[in-house]
Amino acid sequence: MSTIKVYAPATVANLVCGFDVLGMALHRPDDLMTLSLRDEPGLVIQHADEYQLPVEPEKNVAGAALLALLEETPHPVGFDLTIEKRIKPGSGLGSSAASSAGAVVAANHLLGNIFSKEDLVRFAMNGEKVASGVKHADNIAPAIYGGITLIRSIFPLDIVQLSGPPLYVTVVHPQIEVRTSDARQILRKEVQLKNAIKQWGNIAGLVAGLLKHDYALIGRSLEDVIIEPVRSILIPGFDEVKKGSKEAGALGGGISGSGPSIFMLSQEERTAQAVEQLMQQVYTRLGIEFRTYVTTISYEGVRIEK
Amino acid sequence: MSTIKVYAPATVANLVCGFDVLGMALHRPDDLMTLSLRDEPGLVIQHADEYQLPVEPEKNVAGAALLALLEETPHPVGFDLTIEKRIKPGSGLGSSAASSAGAVVAANHLLGNIFSKEDLVRFAMNGEKVASGVKHADNIAPAIYGGITLIRSIFPLDIVQLSGPPLYVTVVHPQIEVRTSDARQILRKEVQLKNAIKQWGNIAGLVAGLLKHDYALIGRSLEDVIIEPVRSILIPGFDEVKKGSKEAGALGGGISGSGPSIFMLSQEERTAQAVEQLMQQVYTRLGIEFRTYVTTISYEGVRIEK
Repeated sequence: MSTIKVYAPATVANLVCGFDVLGMALHRPDDLMTLSLRDEPGLVIQHADEYQLPVEPEKNVAGAALLALLEETPHPVGFDLTIEKRIKPGSGLGSSAASSAGAVVAANHLLGNIFSKEDLVRFAMNGEKVASGVKHADNIAPAIYGGITLIRSIFPLDIVQLSGPPLYVTVVHPQIEVRTSDARQILRKEVQLKNAIKQWGNIAGLVAGLLKHDYALIGRSLEDVIIEPVRSILIPGFDEVKKGSKEAGALGGGISGSGPSIFMLSQEERTAQAVEQLMQQVYTRLGIEFRTYVTTISYEGVRIEK
Repeated sequence: MSTIKVYAPATVANLVCGFDVLGMALHRPDDLMTLSLRDEPGLVIQHADEYQLPVEPEKNVAGAALLALLEETPHPVGFDLTIEKRIKPGSGLGSSAASSAGAVVAANHLLGNIFSKEDLVRFAMNGEKVASGVKHADNIAPAIYGGITLIRSIFPLDIVQLSGPPLYVTVVHPQIEVRTSDARQILRKEVQLKNAIKQWGNIAGLVAGLLKHDYALIGRSLEDVIIEPVRSILIPGFDEVKKGSKEAGALGGGISGSGPSIFMLSQEERTAQAVEQLMQQVYTRLGIEFRTYVTTISYEGVRIEK
């Protein structure tokens, strides 16, 4: 086989109380990528979408990831890559991570799975560096491992897979621009110890809630006293969506990654749908274009078309 | 039954990366307490030990806890309490928590278990306030619930019980004085965000490691980049004990509560014993008196003598 199609998932980084360490893969939206082995070395990248992203390998997130992979590939090969982005760049849904994760998972498959998942994360982080200037893995890891992942440490890389109970995820992407680099710059470099203690109590509660399948504990732990109060200011309608979603029965939620997308977790599908309606009402009234998704956690991560 | 004997366990607060939120109950050392119902209201406290702790109820940690319990007891009663402290005050092993937790568990038993464990934690926190000026629950909760507990939130109180794999605990109590209030004052009120992120990655890893029975992950997560670098300066021999214990095979460990005791976790009993020898060597050479314990986690907490 010399051509492969993969579906690379959207991901929700941070999960409210796990800034820079937690992430979760979703079934929708996803990117569609087609990768072919070339006889000669080199990367040829094409986009089958409207976003006019760069196609030079070192400026393209998938390209940068593949270049890192090729450096460790024992024999010289090349790839043709076509990307159909369906996760809008700048949505806060891990669009760049989907591209780089999808590319390296596809390449590894064509090469006979010679690399481990941890290797693939390492390669894909080069794509994140192109996208945001920082080698972070909180979107990459769930895209590659599937499910919910903890990056306990980034150097050295220590990825922990977390199981959880069935959860429905409602996402709204208000079509405003929040750049990851801006969202990062407005954060203070120091935090109050008492707030840090609250935050690590909450992340401990969230991990325990997930592993113990304790929905109520998951809900109580979805609280962010450090990042959300600062970043949510950049997202019109945030407070209303959060309050309304909880009133509609959602367990809780918050900003997806650095925003502007907002996600909410629910135990029941009908609750997730009620949350979607609420989100639609808020952004319709605010006159801001938006997209919504009701989906579930993808425990597969990047999916290879059989 | 109008008289009861209880064994109140030593506890290790913080568990390295869970400052102010995690705690663990031990089988040894423990305090022995005898409580009797009195016909008339009032508290009479006696000590059967050498520590000359105050016996006026409102100045005694067990007394303050019992006074809080009596305020919510529907009919007027009184108690005679005799405390034999075997957990040395100021050891960092939850000596005050043992007194207040033991007293309220015993009282509740004599009253026909009319209060919940959460109520008992609430009462016992009044003892902690007498001891250290702060109503904290990270020693109280494991003493009352047993095992390893997470205080996700203190106001409102949210206690999460965490299961874990079998673990051996080695404790050394170098007989130097570190007052909780001093140990608290030397902490900075602000921490760097990047260190806070490391810390919440570690506590998430520790909780996942405990619930997944992943010893290696527990070991990797026992890292504290915020509190330990500051507090360990107060404890001679700390670095040597920590380094030597890991070389001897311990998973990891650190300061117990605010110190000066140090605890180390091991997967095997013989490792825990090797760690004990190492601790003995270090403090013998330093010429500091010490006590050591090799013990296990008490999943019962305060134990009522049948």
